[in-house]
Amino acid sequence: MTAVKVIGQPVLPNIPWEDPPATNRAPMWRYSRNPVIPRDLIPTSNSIFNSAVVPFEGRFAGVFRCDDWTRRMELHVGFSDDALHWQINPEPLKFTAAEPEIANFVYGYDPRVARIGDRYYLTWCNWYHGPTIGVAWTDDFIEFHQEENAYLPFNRNGVLFPRKINGRFAMLSRPSDNGHTPFGDIFYSESPDLSFWGKHRHVMSPVANSWQSTKIGGGPVPIETSAGWLLIYHGVLTSCNGYVYSAGVVLLDRDEPWRVIARSAPYVLSPQTTYECVGDVPNVVFPCATLCEGPTGRLAVYYGAADTVTALAFSYVDVMVQFAQDHSLLAA
Amino acid sequence: MTAVKVIGQPVLPNIPWEDPPATNRAPMWRYSRNPVIPRDLIPTSNSIFNSAVVPFEGRFAGVFRCDDWTRRMELHVGFSDDALHWQINPEPLKFTAAEPEIANFVYGYDPRVARIGDRYYLTWCNWYHGPTIGVAWTDDFIEFHQEENAYLPFNRNGVLFPRKINGRFAMLSRPSDNGHTPFGDIFYSESPDLSFWGKHRHVMSPVANSWQSTKIGGGPVPIETSAGWLLIYHGVLTSCNGYVYSAGVVLLDRDEPWRVIARSAPYVLSPQTTYECVGDVPNVVFPCATLCEGPTGRLAVYYGAADTVTALAFSYVDVMVQFAQDHSLLAA
Amino acid sequence: MTAVKVIGQPVLPNIPWEDPPATNRAPMWRYSRNPVIPRDLIPTSNSIFNSAVVPFEGRFAGVFRCDDWTRRMELHVGFSDDALHWQINPEPLKFTAAEPEIANFVYGYDPRVARIGDRYYLTWCNWYHGPTIGVAWTDDFIEFHQEENAYLPFNRNGVLFPRKINGRFAMLSRPSDNGHTPFGDIFYSESPDLSFWGKHRHVMSPVANSWQSTKIGGGPVPIETSAGWLLIYHGVLTSCNGYVYSAGVVLLDRDEPWRVIARSAPYVLSPQTTYECVGDVPNVVFPCATLCEGPTGRLAVYYGAADTVTALAFSYVDVMVQFAQDHSLLAA
Amino acid sequence: MTAVKVIGQPVLPNIPWEDPPATNRAPMWRYSRNPVIPRDLIPTSNSIFNSAVVPFEGRFAGVFRCDDWTRRMELHVGFSDDALHWQINPEPLKFTAAEPEIANFVYGYDPRVARIGDRYYLTWCNWYHGPTIGVAWTDDFIEFHQEENAYLPFNRNGVLFPRKINGRFAMLSRPSDNGHTPFGDIFYSESPDLSFWGKHRHVMSPVANSWQSTKIGGGPVPIETSAGWLLIYHGVLTSCNGYVYSAGVVLLDRDEPWRVIARSAPYVLSPQTTYECVGDVPNVVFPCATLCEGPTGRLAVYYGAADTVTALAFSYVDVMVQFAQDHSLLAA
Amino acid sequence: MTAVKVIGQPVLPNIPWEDPPATNRAPMWRYSRNPVIPRDLIPTSNSIFNSAVVPFEGRFAGVFRCDDWTRRMELHVGFSDDALHWQINPEPLKFTAAEPEIANFVYGYDPRVARIGDRYYLTWCNWYHGPTIGVAWTDDFIEFHQEENAYLPFNRNGVLFPRKINGRFAMLSRPSDNGHTPFGDIFYSESPDLSFWGKHRHVMSPVANSWQSTKIGGGPVPIETSAGWLLIYHGVLTSCNGYVYSAGVVLLDRDEPWRVIARSAPYVLSPQTTYECVGDVPNVVFPCATLCEGPTGRLAVYYGAADTVTALAFSYVDVMVQFAQDHSLLAA
Amino acid sequence: MTAVKVIGQPVLPNIPWEDPPATNRAPMWRYSRNPVIPRDLIPTSNSIFNSAVVPFEGRFAGVFRCDDWTRRMELHVGFSDDALHWQINPEPLKFTAAEPEIANFVYGYDPRVARIGDRYYLTWCNWYHGPTIGVAWTDDFIEFHQEENAYLPFNRNGVLFPRKINGRFAMLSRPSDNGHTPFGDIFYSESPDLSFWGKHRHVMSPVANSWQSTKIGGGPVPIETSAGWLLIYHGVLTSCNGYVYSAGVVLLDRDEPWRVIARSAPYVLSPQTTYECVGDVPNVVFPCATLCEGPTGRLAVYYGAADTVTALAFSYVDVMVQFAQDHSLLAA
Repeated sequence: MTAVKVIGQPVLPNIPWEDPPATNRAPMWRYSRNPVIPRDLIPTSNSIFNSAVVPFEGRFAGVFRCDDWTRRMELHVGFSDDALHWQINPEPLKFTAAEPEIANFVYGYDPRVARIGDRYYLTWCNWYHGPTIGVAWTDDFIEFHQEENAYLPFNRNGVLFPRKINGRFAMLSRPSDNGHTPFGDIFYSESPDLSFWGKHRHVMSPVANSWQSTKIGGGPVPIETSAGWLLIYHGVLTSCNGYVYSAGVVLLDRDEPWRVIARSAPYVLSPQTTYECVGDVPNVVFPCATLCEGPTGRLAVYYGAADTVTALAFSYVDVMVQFAQDHSLLAA
Repeated sequence: MTAVKVIGQPVLPNIPWEDPPATNRAPMWRYSRNPVIPRDLIPTSNSIFNSAVVPFEGRFAGVFRCDDWTRRMELHVGFSDDALHWQINPEPLKFTAAEPEIANFVYGYDPRVARIGDRYYLTWCNWYHGPTIGVAWTDDFIEFHQEENAYLPFNRNGVLFPRKINGRFAMLSRPSDNGHTPFGDIFYSESPDLSFWGKHRHVMSPVANSWQSTKIGGGPVPIETSAGWLLIYHGVLTSCNGYVYSAGVVLLDRDEPWRVIARSAPYVLSPQTTYECVGDVPNVVFPCATLCEGPTGRLAVYYGAADTVTALAFSYVDVMVQFAQDHSLLAA
Repeated sequence: MTAVKVIGQPVLPNIPWEDPPATNRAPMWRYSRNPVIPRDLIPTSNSIFNSAVVPFEGRFAGVFRCDDWTRRMELHVGFSDDALHWQINPEPLKFTAAEPEIANFVYGYDPRVARIGDRYYLTWCNWYHGPTIGVAWTDDFIEFHQEENAYLPFNRNGVLFPRKINGRFAMLSRPSDNGHTPFGDIFYSESPDLSFWGKHRHVMSPVANSWQSTKIGGGPVPIETSAGWLLIYHGVLTSCNGYVYSAGVVLLDRDEPWRVIARSAPYVLSPQTTYECVGDVPNVVFPCATLCEGPTGRLAVYYGAADTVTALAFSYVDVMVQFAQDHSLLAA
Repeated sequence: MTAVKVIGQPVLPNIPWEDPPATNRAPMWRYSRNPVIPRDLIPTSNSIFNSAVVPFEGRFAGVFRCDDWTRRMELHVGFSDDALHWQINPEPLKFTAAEPEIANFVYGYDPRVARIGDRYYLTWCNWYHGPTIGVAWTDDFIEFHQEENAYLPFNRNGVLFPRKINGRFAMLSRPSDNGHTPFGDIFYSESPDLSFWGKHRHVMSPVANSWQSTKIGGGPVPIETSAGWLLIYHGVLTSCNGYVYSAGVVLLDRDEPWRVIARSAPYVLSPQTTYECVGDVPNVVFPCATLCEGPTGRLAVYYGAADTVTALAFSYVDVMVQFAQDHSLLAA
Repeated sequence: MTAVKVIGQPVLPNIPWEDPPATNRAPMWRYSRNPVIPRDLIPTSNSIFNSAVVPFEGRFAGVFRCDDWTRRMELHVGFSDDALHWQINPEPLKFTAAEPEIANFVYGYDPRVARIGDRYYLTWCNWYHGPTIGVAWTDDFIEFHQEENAYLPFNRNGVLFPRKINGRFAMLSRPSDNGHTPFGDIFYSESPDLSFWGKHRHVMSPVANSWQSTKIGGGPVPIETSAGWLLIYHGVLTSCNGYVYSAGVVLLDRDEPWRVIARSAPYVLSPQTTYECVGDVPNVVFPCATLCEGPTGRLAVYYGAADTVTALAFSYVDVMVQFAQDHSLLAA
Repeated sequence: MTAVKVIGQPVLPNIPWEDPPATNRAPMWRYSRNPVIPRDLIPTSNSIFNSAVVPFEGRFAGVFRCDDWTRRMELHVGFSDDALHWQINPEPLKFTAAEPEIANFVYGYDPRVARIGDRYYLTWCNWYHGPTIGVAWTDDFIEFHQEENAYLPFNRNGVLFPRKINGRFAMLSRPSDNGHTPFGDIFYSESPDLSFWGKHRHVMSPVANSWQSTKIGGGPVPIETSAGWLLIYHGVLTSCNGYVYSAGVVLLDRDEPWRVIARSAPYVLSPQTTYECVGDVPNVVFPCATLCEGPTGRLAVYYGAADTVTALAFSYVDVMVQFAQDHSLLAA
């Protein structure tokens, strides 16, 4: 392999980091002080997980899924100096929506934040007569401008690319139904204007007899590299007693991201620690955000653990790219 | 009620027509020689139903769902002088698609044809990694130009409005899942260019304890009237031994067609004759097209019967409008 | 067999009657002019079936299930001179309820009427946060006094005995759940006052590998005989393509009616004619009422056919009793 | 196509026969006096269908599925001079079983009879802790010797080949589960001795988007031809309101019958007449036996219609072979 | 809020008690030595949970759900001086039943004990052709007199009020079906004599998008206060990988307990500790009994944890009342 | 009880062993250093469990289920001196198959190894158009010769007896369907040659209201004793939130092993420790192998824990036999 070039990622000296343990042989290793965000960081939270963090003005900002004691699913904004200790606003995020039809917030969960140009774009699972993909943008993490929902219901796991592709906004999503669906493929769509979406392309399906045999969905915002878009995603296996949510890695073509270049057959992280196996939802590892330092390729991956807390794992971009290439499936 | 004005419908002296029987007390009455199209009109058809007819150059043209002996669902073009006797092309319709990704036709069913300006637009349930809405246009019913699929899977019952609304193409559809889903609401969407769709709006839901309690979907292309868009649609009830598909009527706002003005609580047609109750799918009345004469308001409604044959029923626009108004539900 | 004595049944010279056809070898034979009540006897009825008729002041009265064009399930009162030609009130029956909590009528279906002493008692499937058994009484078939619902939801097929047993009102019913449940046994309960019910006893279950293998429910009000209570009931089989509803016969102990004396293994009537096999619900024979003449033992059985029309079949009490005895299963 | 040679079929001048109607364009045409066996041919039968007939000593013998008024599924023996008018024994067939463990008959249905050498072998769906394949033989259609069940439960549609293959008995079957399973492939197995079965080979699967998309199962005993084994089988489609059972044709390799040579994409018969669409099980065409005259290649196919009556259709061997070849799918 | 008066609760100086930890901000706090009863307290118990304790003759008595090594669900009697250390009889409780029909004990679980006057009444989930509510009384916790089952199957979570209301026994219950039902509302019923039950009233339903969105059921015997009946109950959420059982609080009208005065939107306790998340049934908090001291309003709540052990949590009556009032939902 | 003689088991001085703890009152006690095999013993294993070990040439050999990071289910060979510390080959086992049709290995899991004569026979759940029972033999644990699959799909938990019975190979198995089936009985079959299987006999079913109420399956290779074949097996209970897999014990007739002599009503081991309750599949104890020393009757039972690791428990043959006899159910 020639060296992988990381594209469009900042210098980020304050990225959280730990070197891998000496015995590590996996492509990703856990933060030794996990969980990084406990379930009760704000006074009324039942759980804080599946959350989106980004570098912001020399510090860090984030949008967090906080379920309250009613188990209502809300989004909350937070800030941090080191991306480890967070001040999360106990009041839920309120959107500004020009369009009244979509302004009625019923629930929102599993946010992702993409920086495109100098603006931050938020996508999340938004209820509009069923789950679909909500879209909003902010310049300051104070005011959030809600755009049209991207698709008809039913959809989940909407993830924007961090730049336009073919001159258009580009999004991955996972069409589904209105329950905890036992199926789901990843698709790609484009939009000239964030209002109208089209050119839908099938990207990839679950893989039989594997950790991703039931359904899959995009994870953090993809990272551009000379080897293709690096996408971490989750996959679900139906065991003989429930589901297991693990994480995998895939490389997508830079210009036609619905084409799979390499997709790792093994997972890169699966629920094995107590905080991943025990909680409101057993056996869940669900990555939703990364911090990435361009010059070093360091990756800090934020993931929900057991739908209860937020945990952190580390890797390098080139380790992940090589892992995908070395253990590649044909795209299915 | 002041007189209802029918808008945008042609003079159509050769519209099929029968006056209602003397004893009729329903808003719609059946053609006495039903079924108008038998299941085996073309040599290899298992069934011909859920089909789309329009006036065309002084005669009539249509796109027909013909399931063959393999039970493959194909679309076929046909022509007629009187809209009663049809010459259907035994070869399936082939689309011309500029975009190879979508050119692979797997199956297509339940077509609707809308005339918008001087061009004819076809929508149908099209497989692309699941059922979604295919879109094509033709000027001559010979060459059909396939556009992008309108939505991500899973969707069915895509019905275009016969003119642009708010300067854009406008479509009703019914998001669903990948099986014979026991739920389904009608939504409205717009497109500036037939490639990108957005501004999705919820229109209406099933109604508990009624003929439309399980799912609903748009039927023929809506008819513009001074009282609103007249939409005939189907609704499904889950009996204690299977489904029953009936037809109802609703008036939608002319400028914001996702707003329901009046929606009839009773059905306007339900499966009661042998050809509606017995066939490949028992107990189905499924309207997909109307012919409408502007000056008289005569309506000829083409509907699939038992998913096997095509039948015909008659009414007047003002009878239908008044029925919706007189028996109106709140929009649910 | 010694002669069976029919107990408590009137002289009823105007009972509808036809002798069996010469070739008949079944315990019950159909009326040659079935259906006796068509689906559209009243102007807005979609269907009329599963209905309750009784002798009343030298004529006949009845409470009928009439589903309207909305497919709303309502009860209607009707009268007849010959029990064949009926005048059914097009307005639904309205109950007088002393208790406001239960006065809100949502839907009602499948009525039965029992005469106990000189008063007529109506039971039906009544919605109160789910289906349960509604109870009312009338002296004149004009005013109906609604009592407390007999049970908590979910229940169906409540059938009163025509006299008190052990000094209390006695009812059969079929506990179930809130859908078209694939299971269901018949139970027996007593009440001192029609408000409070208890002493619940299990009567009988479905029978594997038979016409009654999925679920069963009581039919017409039982007829007292020297051989026990004669109960006609329905049973459901799950075929490889839907349900089949047939009718059977069982004898219950006169003093402890939860004890089965004899239960016919074969059905006495199953859907075989077009009006039983084709309609809103295919393959349904569902008896809800009998007329019985005491001195002759003649039986006229009213049953819903295909959940669409009302049909009539004939038998003799002693034929039915002997059929149960000659083909008896152990109670299961 | 060179001429197809029919192998191992008798001269059979009294085979039932009608030439096709002038307008026929299908590979199989119905007997004009269908149903050939009514549901009530014996005094206590609810239905007679899915039955097995063979030439026997200059006349015809058969084993018939007769469900009685209890809806108990039994097998009955019958004889006929013309294969149209049958004398069916009202007493169910009783097996002689050397092995007591399998001698307890719970239910049996859907028989097939194969002549191998000079002996007649019966297979049927037999309950032994679930449905499996019962096997018996007879020399006289009076005494039936029951062998071991061929397989573990759960299995259905066991069909023997009419001669040994590779020196062993050969059978097709359809593994399934313990209900009305929505899936099912055809497999092939061999036995040296009718006691032990093995060398299981997968033959073919359902075909997506077709009349045989849900499950398939073997039909009559295959007919050997120079072009391969001619197998008529049934396939099931899940419509939007229940199942449809149709019949198709496939050619299997003569020496390795698990290899598909040609398999017709279209059906050869599907439920379209009233007696096929209306009955205990709507929309069922289920072939279980053929008579075949060697010199002429005439085929008389006996099939159950609506799980209620037995019907008859005609074809020629070479018509069927050519239909399979001309419309062949790849084996799926 | 004016002070809440606790009504009808004893002076109880030996009630188990711990003050809340300094950091506590929840309305209920756990006992620091949980679980209070281990799974193997008696020699053959697999688990001891969902149990009922009451003050009794200066000490404490209880009826405990003990599943044995066969996983048979039995009830056992126990006594304690301090309500923390229990002597549980290793022999299951045997009922004395005057009525043989109900005397056959198949299984019993989830007991509650109410003191009404000077007598103790036990309710539990009792199998009688399906789960229903068993009722018995005792004066000495030695002899238990079994009454009629309160309702027809299917029912669970029967909870008596601790005094008669409107001169009658009063009970909450949760009608359901015969499996682990995914739905369930709380109802109220009355009985003059513990034999016959009626006047059924709907109390409340699950609440969408919350910890109690799937089903709810009554918990410990309600506590009368000047602000209404204080009822702790359980609610179930369907996560994307199984159920979560939490506890909530509601105030019911003192005279018409089917009327909801205030119902807390948040839960008061949810599974968060290892002994609540890990065990025979993951993620279960299931309160079945309270001890309450009248003068101080101290509450000791006994709850099953993970269907494996019994745990204890503390609160004050006025804290709970105020929590319900301050976070109240409209009754749903 | 007279002394139980252990038959056909070796002198095995190096069997792993711990005496029971002083407080033990169960028939089986856990190894104090469990899990004996961690999930990551080989570099790419996600989990190692449900595995088969045997004495081999003075040491121990085994076939292990190792799921890799793809969650592909593979079999791996391993060796050990003390049966506690294992060297497992990181390369999956490859079979030599004379028959190409079955040589395509898709997945394999849950192996058992039986020594019959001087040869070792491996059975496992093997995919061939669905899960079925794979069979292979080895003399050296290097080369494994794959035989025909024993049965048609769908089957699991194939367990050979350690000697021929009635002159034939003998196997237990559990027919099922193609998912995680909620039902399953144990059957017995014989084969003269490992190619053809027959003489299928039903052995036993689940037991209602117990730890084994949903499905059961054979565990380790049975141990012959003077009291019958000692079979440890697993059973599954459906709790109100998922499955629980426990282990039980049964004695089978030595000559007709389908006859149950004694079957313990209680379990002998159920998931109670963290490593049994928490892991890829919560709440699983799944025994697949035993070591047994003939002279002492010592038993070391290897079982999968939470489908993640391999654990060890100890007992004596006579303790197990007596436990089955003392707590025996009738065979169900």
